[in-house]
Amino acid sequence: MEVANKHVTLKTHIEGAPKESDFELKTSPLSLLLYPGSGEMIVKNLYVSIDPYQLNRMRSYSLSQKTGTGFEGISLGEEIEAYGVAKVVASDNVEFEKGDVVVGVVTWAEYSKVRRNGMIRKLDPLGFPLSYHLGILGYSGLTAYAGFFEICKPKRGEKVFVSTAAGSVGNLVGQFAKLHGCYVVGCAGSKQKVQLLKEKLGFDEAFNYREETDLNSTLKRYFPDGIDIYFDNVGAEMQEAAVANMNTFGRVAVSGVISECIDPGKRAAPNMLQIIHKRIKIQGFLAVDHIGLFQDFVSTTSNHLRSGELCPLEDISDGLGSIPFAFTGLFRGDNIGKKIVKIAEE
Amino acid sequence: MEVANKHVTLKTHIEGAPKESDFELKTSPLSLLLYPGSGEMIVKNLYVSIDPYQLNRMRSYSLSQKTGTGFEGISLGEEIEAYGVAKVVASDNVEFEKGDVVVGVVTWAEYSKVRRNGMIRKLDPLGFPLSYHLGILGYSGLTAYAGFFEICKPKRGEKVFVSTAAGSVGNLVGQFAKLHGCYVVGCAGSKQKVQLLKEKLGFDEAFNYREETDLNSTLKRYFPDGIDIYFDNVGAEMQEAAVANMNTFGRVAVSGVISECIDPGKRAAPNMLQIIHKRIKIQGFLAVDHIGLFQDFVSTTSNHLRSGELCPLEDISDGLGSIPFAFTGLFRGDNIGKKIVKIAEE
Repeated sequence: MEVANKHVTLKTHIEGAPKESDFELKTSPLSLLLYPGSGEMIVKNLYVSIDPYQLNRMRSYSLSQKTGTGFEGISLGEEIEAYGVAKVVASDNVEFEKGDVVVGVVTWAEYSKVRRNGMIRKLDPLGFPLSYHLGILGYSGLTAYAGFFEICKPKRGEKVFVSTAAGSVGNLVGQFAKLHGCYVVGCAGSKQKVQLLKEKLGFDEAFNYREETDLNSTLKRYFPDGIDIYFDNVGAEMQEAAVANMNTFGRVAVSGVISECIDPGKRAAPNMLQIIHKRIKIQGFLAVDHIGLFQDFVSTTSNHLRSGELCPLEDISDGLGSIPFAFTGLFRGDNIGKKIVKIAEE
Repeated sequence: MEVANKHVTLKTHIEGAPKESDFELKTSPLSLLLYPGSGEMIVKNLYVSIDPYQLNRMRSYSLSQKTGTGFEGISLGEEIEAYGVAKVVASDNVEFEKGDVVVGVVTWAEYSKVRRNGMIRKLDPLGFPLSYHLGILGYSGLTAYAGFFEICKPKRGEKVFVSTAAGSVGNLVGQFAKLHGCYVVGCAGSKQKVQLLKEKLGFDEAFNYREETDLNSTLKRYFPDGIDIYFDNVGAEMQEAAVANMNTFGRVAVSGVISECIDPGKRAAPNMLQIIHKRIKIQGFLAVDHIGLFQDFVSTTSNHLRSGELCPLEDISDGLGSIPFAFTGLFRGDNIGKKIVKIAEE
């Protein structure tokens, strides 16, 4: 038993922003017969997640990263790891059997081989579409939840600023912040996104950063009483402007630095004297460190989804072949909400 | 009853690094008769503290700071506030009487008038020289203590880097870190300071940053296993190099940014992607927020002083007229340890 397995891989390591020509679609034979005792399984991918953090692993300099850090570089031709929802088609792992729906680390491929200790678990969809478990009920959701509640420690009434607010994480930070009783302003890169934030997601205000020439005064206009919390998905000059407009004891949760990823010459150089005087905290974080919150997060978020207080925002493309366009689109700002590629029907 | 009171004041607001010619010595008559019910008192200053943070209040742009922030600008000709130890010579405040030795906010002057709600208290010298209460037992000490223990939350065996390690705060951070069982490396600006850190203060290693051309590799050499805690007194490229060499969950306590003060074109632009991947925290702080620790701090530090485990490092100049040279010297790196000016005999 063997399938011709299509997968997306790197044709060249990426410099600056990714281009579609950096990727190629390859087909390799994959045996569905597993070596007894291997503990491996083969899954058929249904949905895969498209995330900006994956870019860093596609840089040639990441090849020198130690393995086990989660930031190791991807070799040319190698399968590209990604979160996904999949169905088990063959299993030598006693904990899984054929037909199980699973979620965890798979690859950008039609089929993925999952090793004995692969980061994967059986998925109870809880009555929601499977794709939700890659976004609002998955790592994007946990990033927003842990970053906002654990790193920012918000108080009711505080003023919250979110960048890439129509992105997979940003839109949820804003929605969590509203549910928590905060004043929330988001920025995004198009009129359509701004409208969505205000009209559909309940942000108090939103603006299109591409239309602003002086971010410092833009933020002063939206935050006449200052910013208490900045959830940073972009880095660079937006972070500097946020720090300049921050109140004492303000907190910056650094979740992403998309503008620094695209242009490595860009760097946030926030005013350190203000950081001292205003006792500002700038904290980088990863959702994985807050995995202990996962049950809390899923139960809170599910309840909000059922009551209609949280709005899932998904942007789903169709077919493995759409991955390069979908991934490069993250850095053009194409996506609205969580970017997902559907690989196959359930 | 009136005295001719000499005081140091600003002749011009300061741009960049301070120069002696930015200051002048003035004499004004000061009445020792206080208006009954005013709650005021007149103190004769014995020692005054010379601190880098005072520079910011001497900038013209600080004149627009709101009052009550502690960062208000100083007008030309106005007396310059500073911490000091003083003796009460006249009091209309029921809590103080003539002859009391006090510590708190006075001015760079022979005599200072202290208002009813002035930040001043009676001083019990605890058997130590009065000057200690401006340094190792005063705000510099609390800054080191609170910054290191509260902001950095050190664990035994962690690797600690301190910049301006021969300065008023840095030398104490290093000494506290050694007492806490950490590996400590300091940097300073002269061979003499480096020697002192290693031979007298027990730092594991120290280096002269003026002799280094690539701070990144310098830190890699002194920290082959990475930095866990960076106590930052300088900002700029030293902070960037520290972040680049930091371990996961590393902490940067930002206490001062002396190199950014001298050259406002200099800014720390640490790598934000590393800040995320390594979950680094950069935290500005002020000792005043940790005033609740003061009793703990004084009792711990006094015990260490009595047992000889802590070494006080003072740099005392003589006479009010030496203040401009002493203050500008902070930014040339003249001082070794806490810079104090002795104004009068006890």
